[in-house]
Amino acid sequence: MKTQVCIIGGGPSGLMLSQLLHLKGIDTVVLEKHSREYVLGRIRAGVLEHGFAELMREAQCGERMDREGEIHDGFYIAHDGQLDRVDLKKYSGGSSVVVYGQTELTRDLYEARDRMQGKVIHNVEDVALHDIDGKAPYVTYRDGDEIVRIDCDYIIGADGFHGPSRKAIPRSVLKEHEKVYPFGWLGVLSRTKPVSPELIYAKHPRGFALCSLRSQVLSRYYIQVPLTDSVEDWPDAAFWAELKARLPQEVADRMETGPSIEKSIAPLRSFVAEPMRYGNLFLAGDAAHIVPPTGARGLNSAASDIYYLYHAMVDHYLNGDDTGLETYSQKALARVWKAQRFSWWMTMLMHSFPDAISYDQRLQQTDLDYLFSSDKALGSLAENYVGLPF
Amino acid sequence: MKTQVCIIGGGPSGLMLSQLLHLKGIDTVVLEKHSREYVLGRIRAGVLEHGFAELMREAQCGERMDREGEIHDGFYIAHDGQLDRVDLKKYSGGSSVVVYGQTELTRDLYEARDRMQGKVIHNVEDVALHDIDGKAPYVTYRDGDEIVRIDCDYIIGADGFHGPSRKAIPRSVLKEHEKVYPFGWLGVLSRTKPVSPELIYAKHPRGFALCSLRSQVLSRYYIQVPLTDSVEDWPDAAFWAELKARLPQEVADRMETGPSIEKSIAPLRSFVAEPMRYGNLFLAGDAAHIVPPTGARGLNSAASDIYYLYHAMVDHYLNGDDTGLETYSQKALARVWKAQRFSWWMTMLMHSFPDAISYDQRLQQTDLDYLFSSDKALGSLAENYVGLPF
Repeated sequence: MKTQVCIIGGGPSGLMLSQLLHLKGIDTVVLEKHSREYVLGRIRAGVLEHGFAELMREAQCGERMDREGEIHDGFYIAHDGQLDRVDLKKYSGGSSVVVYGQTELTRDLYEARDRMQGKVIHNVEDVALHDIDGKAPYVTYRDGDEIVRIDCDYIIGADGFHGPSRKAIPRSVLKEHEKVYPFGWLGVLSRTKPVSPELIYAKHPRGFALCSLRSQVLSRYYIQVPLTDSVEDWPDAAFWAELKARLPQEVADRMETGPSIEKSIAPLRSFVAEPMRYGNLFLAGDAAHIVPPTGARGLNSAASDIYYLYHAMVDHYLNGDDTGLETYSQKALARVWKAQRFSWWMTMLMHSFPDAISYDQRLQQTDLDYLFSSDKALGSLAENYVGLPF
Repeated sequence: MKTQVCIIGGGPSGLMLSQLLHLKGIDTVVLEKHSREYVLGRIRAGVLEHGFAELMREAQCGERMDREGEIHDGFYIAHDGQLDRVDLKKYSGGSSVVVYGQTELTRDLYEARDRMQGKVIHNVEDVALHDIDGKAPYVTYRDGDEIVRIDCDYIIGADGFHGPSRKAIPRSVLKEHEKVYPFGWLGVLSRTKPVSPELIYAKHPRGFALCSLRSQVLSRYYIQVPLTDSVEDWPDAAFWAELKARLPQEVADRMETGPSIEKSIAPLRSFVAEPMRYGNLFLAGDAAHIVPPTGARGLNSAASDIYYLYHAMVDHYLNGDDTGLETYSQKALARVWKAQRFSWWMTMLMHSFPDAISYDQRLQQTDLDYLFSSDKALGSLAENYVGLPF
């Protein structure tokens, strides 16, 4: 098989890039390890920044998002028994975020790929990258007993943290930067009316909590838990009680509870791999960087990678200009690190750190006090939350 | 002896409060452990925020400061071989700082106290505070063989980190928060033309450096050094060589060097004691809080204490309103912690942390990249540097 751009990974990044390039007449093949049902069953992020929503529209996949997604002009920070609102629209100079579940978004991308007869190959096994620093790179995978080879100009590694793409870069070239946090997020999805139309990030001595949502009938709640906890330690009743204990009374009082339809614990991690290009391989999204979920940068961090890659490929194939390809790693990393910075800052701001000295605890409290006393600080938070310019 | 307000400590905070209260007809006595010559011999901060300069004027001590002090509308951050300017005036909405040595400022305050025949008693030994939580507090000190007693309504503890005032608060009441940093600042004063009319804060892999000044013929330079170093390890030639190595080439090339007329190493420390009021004792300045020198908050942190105390005393004595006295600790600490936050942030931004993991090193670099890419971030830096509102 031959294609121009072979995209490893059929998550939102890979599908969107494939769709965008197809619309410009650039041929792609998407390889996905899992089945379509598996990919669509993953529960993931739901807050899309302005730039990501724009890419969805440019990919001609924005219709349902614009119809069913909810524009959020702000969110709340709960602390010391009170709720303070961050007016994103006001402090960012007019921008907002869209709340639209990643599952829905991925479904829209699949349907668009179907309509255009895009090549998305599922259940591929033993994906391997070859000659990525040579003139004729190719990708192989196993389909039953058969090894299939795809010759291509470029390979996009959009195959997540555990995929083979990043690992194909020689260890002598790749630098990995990582930071771990001494806690995880226990998340519960429930078919209940969200307690607040806008997200509530809660700082509490018992630990962080987040009230998020996927739609008006689907709530997503999280609480900070020790890494030693497992979901078995948290029957539904215990989860709801702990969540309420970390929220202002008025919020807890109006919370609708119900059975969890999904419950999981995710550790928090910050991770960046550099460079994001090696030869003809370009990394995008989780394959190159992971953020803790505080501040909703995960999917949005991938958006700028896709944006830069899309324009670089168009410039290469349609305009004969390779500048975008050559500067990809540098440009992508500059924005990736800023999203890392923001996610780290918001994680440090909102969580309980059991071993923190009293000075650092007071500093954390002061960060919040300063935030709500300063238009400049609120402006900085807002511009990062709605997404820095590409 | 009897007075209304007994002020322990004849540094700038104590003298200024004494002067301000005197002008409102409130009687004070200032007790200073050292001689006037000793106090005037100390080399200290030189960057005054807007609010501090205003207090000097209100104390009728601003004339020489306004004549000889230099208005600085910005400063530079040197990093990666380049100089980026922070336009304080632009980003703070019109404010500036005044560069005027603390020695000069203290001299002006002494002269004002002399003119008004203010009671400033030097060389007092064994200062002790009595009945601070009772109705009739008093202070004693030893003058030769004699114990002198000063009865007063209120005691101001402006006697620095090592003075007796804070220690007079029962340990069951006082909470101390402290953070130490794994380095110190080696400072050199020299009669040379400053390399830059505005301050240069330099971030460099070899360590932080600062080019400051006291006047157009008096330079003050600093370099970050390990805490294990002593001044003997740093003959003048070694100091100048290391300073230049940490600056952009163009700055190093035009640096005028000369013999040091003062050389010392100061460890960096963040410290806050709470509460700042106990009974009839009110702490101010270094007695209650210390910041690392990065960002020039030390003297300026004291300024808001003096401002709040001044107005609280005036309200009490002239208007019969004790609200200011009752809310002093809370109001003062709110601003003190914000200055602590800023000093901590700027210290973390600019120094080398030898044990930092690679992730944190990149995060530090990103903080700087983000700063110079965002008007909001520059606005936040500027409003803190020129001083948050009282």
